Amino acid sequence: MIDDTITAIATALGEAGISIIRISGPEAINVLDGIFRSKKGISIKEYPQRKMVYGHIFDKERNKVLDEVLVVYMKAPYTYTKEDIVEINCHGGIVPTRNILHLVLKNGVRMAEPGEFTKRAFLNGRIDLAQAEAVMDLISAKTDKGFDVALSQLEGNLSKNVKKLREIILETLAHLHVSIDYTEEDIQEITYSQLLSNMETIKDEIERLLKTSETGKIIREGLNTVIIGKPNVGKSSLLNALLRESRAIVTDVPGTTRDVIEEYLSIKGIPLKIVDTAGIRDTEDLVEKIGVERSKEFFNRGDLIILVLDASEDLTKEDMEIIEHIKHRKAIVLLNKTDLPQRVDEKKLEGLLPNQRVIKISILEEKGLDEIEDEIVNMVYGGNIKSRDSSFITNVRHKSSLEKALKSISDGIEAANQNLPYDLIEVDIKDCYDFLGEITGDTVDDDIVDKIFSNFCLGK
Amino acid sequence: MIDDTITAIATALGEAGISIIRISGPEAINVLDGIFRSKKGISIKEYPQRKMVYGHIFDKERNKVLDEVLVVYMKAPYTYTKEDIVEINCHGGIVPTRNILHLVLKNGVRMAEPGEFTKRAFLNGRIDLAQAEAVMDLISAKTDKGFDVALSQLEGNLSKNVKKLREIILETLAHLHVSIDYTEEDIQEITYSQLLSNMETIKDEIERLLKTSETGKIIREGLNTVIIGKPNVGKSSLLNALLRESRAIVTDVPGTTRDVIEEYLSIKGIPLKIVDTAGIRDTEDLVEKIGVERSKEFFNRGDLIILVLDASEDLTKEDMEIIEHIKHRKAIVLLNKTDLPQRVDEKKLEGLLPNQRVIKISILEEKGLDEIEDEIVNMVYGGNIKSRDSSFITNVRHKSSLEKALKSISDGIEAANQNLPYDLIEVDIKDCYDFLGEITGDTVDDDIVDKIFSNFCLGK
Repeated sequence: MIDDTITAIATALGEAGISIIRISGPEAINVLDGIFRSKKGISIKEYPQRKMVYGHIFDKERNKVLDEVLVVYMKAPYTYTKEDIVEINCHGGIVPTRNILHLVLKNGVRMAEPGEFTKRAFLNGRIDLAQAEAVMDLISAKTDKGFDVALSQLEGNLSKNVKKLREIILETLAHLHVSIDYTEEDIQEITYSQLLSNMETIKDEIERLLKTSETGKIIREGLNTVIIGKPNVGKSSLLNALLRESRAIVTDVPGTTRDVIEEYLSIKGIPLKIVDTAGIRDTEDLVEKIGVERSKEFFNRGDLIILVLDASEDLTKEDMEIIEHIKHRKAIVLLNKTDLPQRVDEKKLEGLLPNQRVIKISILEEKGLDEIEDEIVNMVYGGNIKSRDSSFITNVRHKSSLEKALKSISDGIEAANQNLPYDLIEVDIKDCYDFLGEITGDTVDDDIVDKIFSNFCLGK
Repeated sequence: MIDDTITAIATALGEAGISIIRISGPEAINVLDGIFRSKKGISIKEYPQRKMVYGHIFDKERNKVLDEVLVVYMKAPYTYTKEDIVEINCHGGIVPTRNILHLVLKNGVRMAEPGEFTKRAFLNGRIDLAQAEAVMDLISAKTDKGFDVALSQLEGNLSKNVKKLREIILETLAHLHVSIDYTEEDIQEITYSQLLSNMETIKDEIERLLKTSETGKIIREGLNTVIIGKPNVGKSSLLNALLRESRAIVTDVPGTTRDVIEEYLSIKGIPLKIVDTAGIRDTEDLVEKIGVERSKEFFNRGDLIILVLDASEDLTKEDMEIIEHIKHRKAIVLLNKTDLPQRVDEKKLEGLLPNQRVIKISILEEKGLDEIEDEIVNMVYGGNIKSRDSSFITNVRHKSSLEKALKSISDGIEAANQNLPYDLIEVDIKDCYDFLGEITGDTVDDDIVDKIFSNFCLGK
């Protein structure tokens, strides 16, 4: 039972028009009543709830007005935390915000821990754990697509999938349970083949969800894309062309290393972090060497490699070296300068890179750029356009739970294939059920919950 | 006539629980109605004004939910701008805040200029110019005292003083006018001595207001205090002792140079910026020389010098040099180490510094610290404790207008003393009246108004 009242500054700190101090808990309205003077001189309790009321915050002890404010009181349970909530909108400076917060704290309210408002929404049953995690994703989202996925998760779409899956498992478990407990009686037992079929369905769905995590990671963090190729094949022009085509430049993320060669752009909603490398080749020059070392590092970390070749020349030794490096990578090969007479041996190239798509382009004539974009979208969404609208696994914790659930159900399938006793199989299915429950928070330890919310920002 | 609708983000930017997008103007409610979907599915116009309503911001064109929000509509004229105001509280991330702002802008609302909401409050006659300027001071206030003065100015206390003064001037002008226009008729003329008496009263009040500007500057920017003295007389111990005594450490101001030797503290509400100098003396060491150069610079810029001397020693040549430097400065002399047998010649010291207060202290035994604080308060408020509650001139623009008003009234007094014709004196009094009107914005050019508000932060 939560019975204390918490407070925090809910807006970002800085000089601005408005700051909000938020209070949640049973004492919220009494605390406000003690420090707020409405213009009409009547108690805030006399006003309807959810009404913005003008007045002043007054510190009785110091006999002093702290600021002029608008306040609102929202009555439980239809609030963010399912508790009584008070919000004080004051002038957005450091002094009034800090002083009002101090006054609220002096009145027996406790400073909220990071994420504690959302944690209460979870503990009070308004949202499940995956939805709570979505709140932080919403706030920290760097791209529209990342935000959309978080919003969908907040609305409960991921949770719905997981819950449906758990219901299927629960039915299987119930059926299995009956077979174990009442073997002598006249109840239809589940057969190994029925059981296997059920478990395969569960496994397929878990695998489907897990597959979305690759896209989910890209949506969340952006697709690390490395443009590579010899000097003067058109790497920088390509980058410029893509930037120009880009529907919306992705918001610059504060704190990220912004080497001169890193650019953010968005292709059909997919955030791309593009690294335009200096080219990977041996060099004797120390300074250049450092640049090349960094290129190699980016190259190794890249999710997608874009190799630019010059169509008007034969493949050089340098090209061949790079081709050797990308053989087993996710890569797109661009044959640039198709406006010039073609000299490159396309057949040979396709033989060298049988798994990579080769696209002919001319950056000069702006030809082939759409094809590049389509290919990137295709690679990210795995050709399944439909999946673009469904929910994605963007959270590492969810992915890990899904992987554990997959392992359990796979173990169960193996056991069933070996005709092991039902109660041994039951353990695996039960594990699978529990691991999935970690995602929504139905089966999760308190310390994991604490850890999740401690990563939140203050005031949420 | 203002007839367009403006918008801006009213909270500080950053990852936080809540951001507010504010809209002001005749179209505010229609724009909100077009993009907001309440949970109940009814129009925002059906709800009472000032009620916080839960729902979603929806972009019809993209058929897309932008965020879940709380919105409130405040009806003119009882709002910040005296116009219809809408506030949208969304998740405090960059993506939802930016997207909702863009959607509002797409609906025919114009991006507000810095300070434009407050400018409208001024143009619509809700507040005068001095009050409007107080809003920015409130937000940027670094200390409690600075905030209190700004709040008092926002509540109209400075304006009240200025307006009262202008009324007196207006009466004098009316009287004078009658004397000029109807000299032949049977109306009692104002005498030169009456006129002079009135003008002296006006002059006294302007001078009184101007006097507060020194304190006002300190309240706004802090008192630049330099601690000076030979090595080992206890300069750093004094600083530490004052810091410990300090009721509240003044908020650290971002962006200010924080040399190791600068400390902020608050003595009875007065913000002090204390510089603990390395000591001013000649030196051969280059590195040390730079330190000493900086000391001298601080020394010259200081509002208050605190000289620390060793009471257990005779005055040295070094001490005498420093004493020579502070003879004509605002300074306090501290005789430290009174716990040891006294050897310094107090009489001689007082003879050398007749205008400075000498206080005996022992930092070791914590004696005399209260006296230092009292003396600082005394120097700042000029011994007039009452003035601590009244309003201060903290604004350079106001100070400049007061100075011009003072010049005009002084010219008028001179003219009256020379028995110059009334209409010549009238010009001076009228100027004085106009210069005072600049403070409240009654007589001020549009471009000055524009300039004032352009210094505001966005969204206020």
